Amino acid sequence: MKVQKFSIADVNLVRSPGQSGDIFVANMVDERHGGHITIGYGRYAPEQTLTETMAVDDVMIVLEGRIAVSMGAGTVEAGPGEIVYMPKGASVTITTEGEGALTAYVTYPHWAEAHES
Amino acid sequence: MKVQKFSIADVNLVRSPGQSGDIFVANMVDERHGGHITIGYGRYAPEQTLTETMAVDDVMIVLEGRIAVSMGAGTVEAGPGEIVYMPKGASVTITTEGEGALTAYVTYPHWAEAHES
Repeated sequence: MKVQKFSIADVNLVRSPGQSGDIFVANMVDERHGGHITIGYGRYAPEQTLTETMAVDDVMIVLEGRIAVSMGAGTVEAGPGEIVYMPKGASVTITTEGEGALTAYVTYPHWAEAHES
Repeated sequence: MKVQKFSIADVNLVRSPGQSGDIFVANMVDERHGGHITIGYGRYAPEQTLTETMAVDDVMIVLEGRIAVSMGAGTVEAGPGEIVYMPKGASVTITTEGEGALTAYVTYPHWAEAHES
């Protein structure tokens, strides 16, 4: 029940599971803490591509850089302050160009559990 | 199941319910869309104070400006790129100073429904 504050300076990013690119994540709040949502930071190096089918609802807030998310016919591009919502079941390709990107994310339910199952 | 992108430029902010200050919100995704989470933007004018007991888990990502959240003995202050997590049941006072703040938020479950009940 305690209010918590997180900053990218506090985190240890690890390579995002299930891919070998330079995409790193750090969960600040997740299944270890008893709630329903996961909160974290993601860092994408430049020129990365990640294709996946969303196992959870995933909200990505771009903090720095730019990211593109394509799904079938359409592509959205997002920069600082913009939000990309990738609902469960969506098959997406996430790409970065020369800048890479820093994101915050919130998922419901916990992505790490959904990933394993 | 569609990927969506949101930008502060797209939104119509409305006064946050239950308070008369200059605090404005816009839900981009909420109970109208069938999922479990609400996604939105919040704008706090300078020198605002909002006290509430959290009816839902609320993740606030600061995009511009600064915000302080106090709870009992402790206060956290957050600026651009920082995340404040206010879990359900927490009694908080949110304040802004001279800059005000622009935030993105994600709540589980939907705050508007919890607010009404």
